[in-house]
Amino acid sequence: MSNNFKKINVKDEARVELHDALDLTGAEISINILPEGANVPFVHSHKQNEEIYGIIDGEGHAVIDGETVPLAKGDWLRVSPAAKRQFFASQHSAIKYICIQVKANSLQGYTATDAEIM
Amino acid sequence: MSNNFKKINVKDEARVELHDALDLTGAEISINILPEGANVPFVHSHKQNEEIYGIIDGEGHAVIDGETVPLAKGDWLRVSPAAKRQFFASQHSAIKYICIQVKANSLQGYTATDAEIM
Repeated sequence: MSNNFKKINVKDEARVELHDALDLTGAEISINILPEGANVPFVHSHKQNEEIYGIIDGEGHAVIDGETVPLAKGDWLRVSPAAKRQFFASQHSAIKYICIQVKANSLQGYTATDAEIM
Repeated sequence: MSNNFKKINVKDEARVELHDALDLTGAEISINILPEGANVPFVHSHKQNEEIYGIIDGEGHAVIDGETVPLAKGDWLRVSPAAKRQFFASQHSAIKYICIQVKANSLQGYTATDAEIM
């Protein structure tokens, strides 16, 4: 395997963090499972980082700045750094979600303006 | 809904791009489905952006700098900007994957050094 890429396989673990596992330089990404009735045990915000959450399976809700946001498979959510957030599984379903941390305003070109087609 | 977050639901479409839909500032994220036997019709690299791919369902393979990399559900892959890459579904299975574009070396603090716990 060249240094130009790195691959791992993520099983159904409670939380897997990819930054160190994949030598990421532009993001931290975690894959998380909250069992039914469970929740992240704290409210948090960020100093610099935007977070993007993607719901891969199950359902639950988030509370963001006091507002309840229902979450189901296929939902994708951008949360600004300063927002106070907490995530909950449903009482009758686990929730599996991806959380992507990136520095807010760090993206310059992308897709058509950053890619080079061979 | 405050400006501090935004949510959409992604159905099983061929390709959905989140940057404009969610007003992202630190990443472009696409959710992609290649039907069985299909492939992205070109090889590409990037000028500045690191890409992280996550396989959500199905199987296939990538060719990265001439090396064939098998891909299955749960695989996560970091690809450096300059690597030449192309993605293929299996001949007998579709592949559903997330592609996250971020500027290489843009991440500073993360998790414990960027989060503030309430």
